[in-house]
Amino acid sequence: MSTPPDLRWTAERRARLALAHVVEPGDPGMWRTVATLGAQAAWAELRAPGSRSRWARRAVVFDTDAAILRTERTGARFVIPGDPEWPEQLGVLAACEPVQERMGVPVGLWVRGSGDLAELARASVAIVGARASTSYGEHVALELSHELVEAGMPVISGAAYGIDAAAHRGALATRDGAGDAVTAAVLACGIDQVYPAAHAGLYEAVTGRGILVTELAPGEHPTRLRFLSRNRLIAALSRGTVIVEAAYRSGARNTVTWASACGRPVMAVPGPVTSTLSTTPNRLLRDHEAELVSSHEDILAILSPVGQDTLIGHQEPPTPVDLLGEAETIVLEALPGRGTTGVDELSVRAALPVRQCLVELESLAAKGLAREQEPGLWQLTRRHLGRRA
Amino acid sequence: MSTPPDLRWTAERRARLALAHVVEPGDPGMWRTVATLGAQAAWAELRAPGSRSRWARRAVVFDTDAAILRTERTGARFVIPGDPEWPEQLGVLAACEPVQERMGVPVGLWVRGSGDLAELARASVAIVGARASTSYGEHVALELSHELVEAGMPVISGAAYGIDAAAHRGALATRDGAGDAVTAAVLACGIDQVYPAAHAGLYEAVTGRGILVTELAPGEHPTRLRFLSRNRLIAALSRGTVIVEAAYRSGARNTVTWASACGRPVMAVPGPVTSTLSTTPNRLLRDHEAELVSSHEDILAILSPVGQDTLIGHQEPPTPVDLLGEAETIVLEALPGRGTTGVDELSVRAALPVRQCLVELESLAAKGLAREQEPGLWQLTRRHLGRRA
Repeated sequence: MSTPPDLRWTAERRARLALAHVVEPGDPGMWRTVATLGAQAAWAELRAPGSRSRWARRAVVFDTDAAILRTERTGARFVIPGDPEWPEQLGVLAACEPVQERMGVPVGLWVRGSGDLAELARASVAIVGARASTSYGEHVALELSHELVEAGMPVISGAAYGIDAAAHRGALATRDGAGDAVTAAVLACGIDQVYPAAHAGLYEAVTGRGILVTELAPGEHPTRLRFLSRNRLIAALSRGTVIVEAAYRSGARNTVTWASACGRPVMAVPGPVTSTLSTTPNRLLRDHEAELVSSHEDILAILSPVGQDTLIGHQEPPTPVDLLGEAETIVLEALPGRGTTGVDELSVRAALPVRQCLVELESLAAKGLAREQEPGLWQLTRRHLGRRA
Repeated sequence: MSTPPDLRWTAERRARLALAHVVEPGDPGMWRTVATLGAQAAWAELRAPGSRSRWARRAVVFDTDAAILRTERTGARFVIPGDPEWPEQLGVLAACEPVQERMGVPVGLWVRGSGDLAELARASVAIVGARASTSYGEHVALELSHELVEAGMPVISGAAYGIDAAAHRGALATRDGAGDAVTAAVLACGIDQVYPAAHAGLYEAVTGRGILVTELAPGEHPTRLRFLSRNRLIAALSRGTVIVEAAYRSGARNTVTWASACGRPVMAVPGPVTSTLSTTPNRLLRDHEAELVSSHEDILAILSPVGQDTLIGHQEPPTPVDLLGEAETIVLEALPGRGTTGVDELSVRAALPVRQCLVELESLAAKGLAREQEPGLWQLTRRHLGRRA
């Protein structure tokens, strides 16, 4: 695969590729150096004799040309700030406080698959949750993701077991439209690695109708720190993060913390209080750290507020009994549950004049709620009784 | 059953009994009349020739003596404002806006069972929800109720199928303690009626360790309007309302509206978004109209905060203790937490003359807060102790 003309190996791209190999992603010290000096000066400083950086030894032996070859062999493109495919919203990470000592805008991203990352991310939502999920959580993640993609909103997740996989699969199960990318998997390993190994098929499906993204160099494996760094990208790339099932301790909780730090909406799907996998979503809702979402309409209303009135909820139509006037209701309630009653007795029970009772009875009869069983004797119809049961 | 001395059939009690029979509960017009004129004048006006009230025809034929006999035959007491057993917090309804055209403080309450309604209600919580509940909802209602009662908080509900029944049963399944009332069922029918009929056993169990309450006269049946009126009592009697499972259309939703109107905390147990019975709780949470509760600890944290600060924003009705005069309060606080004390010792502890101590003790006794256990030896009542606990 040849390098596209807009991804030429300029000095800036070479310096960023080198930094992305040598420095652990999310490292606060290196982020500050790059933010202050720029990538090329930061890289030069790292390789300068006498550098006291912990990354200096790696930097000195690093072979940029070999790394370029390796990246090109993976079929991935290495995207940096300023490229058309660079997702501008990652800039939010420049202003974020560290979370668990990770921070900063990535120096570059390896991207592989179909579609444009910047375009996909612009209107996307993240769906994250437990690896050890229940069928309830997987069902909900799959449904939400499916509906969101059908509504034009791509879904970002982490390609893990459980909720992540359900989110990707829901997106991939949509109708194949105009070739738009439907999902992005943000990895905690190199773009040529498959983790977990059982997700080889999922990776392949994602690259067919979506994108794999990572800030880790080819060949790199996931570590705990790398999952934490990866989570900040999921949160920053998407317009908001939805959490579906997560136990008290959960990586998804960390993603949500990043979403908050980025000022992006945090949404949670509630679950039965009897399930330990409801702990984190329900707690976030209890503590007002997340908005409750039950459906894709709820999510769209939060993320696409234009015209949200038409999206919120499906109002059930009022029943005939709801539409009655006050006097009609009183007469209806005064009719006996069983058997019939005369108008005089009804007048006393309803505390309304006989004349008015007759008017209301006729009105109720016209609506099918009461009938004159014999002359002068009135009763409720089955239609009304059905409503009571 | 003879009438207790403090429930004598005074002119006020007779007038309120008559009004409670003749006027539909929650009627806004009559509430305003009673609030303005007082019960006796309101009753006289209703029976006056030429009255144009819709209740006048019923009032003219009403036989108060026969009604007294009938009430006494039910074994219930008819409690009115000013009685020691009258729950002062119902006063909040005097200031509430109408909900579905129902409003007002009840003119009186029929009460039957074990324990003191005022004492039970003071630290109580309402648990309400769907009749057609799932095993999830019933399990949660039962558990929450059980744990709340074990923690000293009686549970109020409506004795309906489903969540209501589970709430009462959870309360009744607690250890039989010092004979305190553990639950109250607020009815939409007369105190001598059983609705639904299948709940005869539940009614009996509730009267064994709790209280039945209604503002409907003996013999009366429930109607849709009466359920709506009843719901305002559940909301006003309790310190807060918890909703566990309710479909989009639900009486429990109406109770929650009353709780909000009364300035009482509304709490909701979330449920799976795939269940129609989660619709109302999840929607209340989504719209920030309820606090999420997963456990009895969550409920206690909202209703019994360690510091009073967290209660700011919720209008708490004054308790009898709050309404005491300064000297009464001093004497009340000088009474020992356990055991009895003589008036001489009390006079020293309260730093008030013996003569005044006796006056204040009589006043406290009239309010049910203190009693003369043996001649000359005074003690606090359970009513006051309940407040302290």
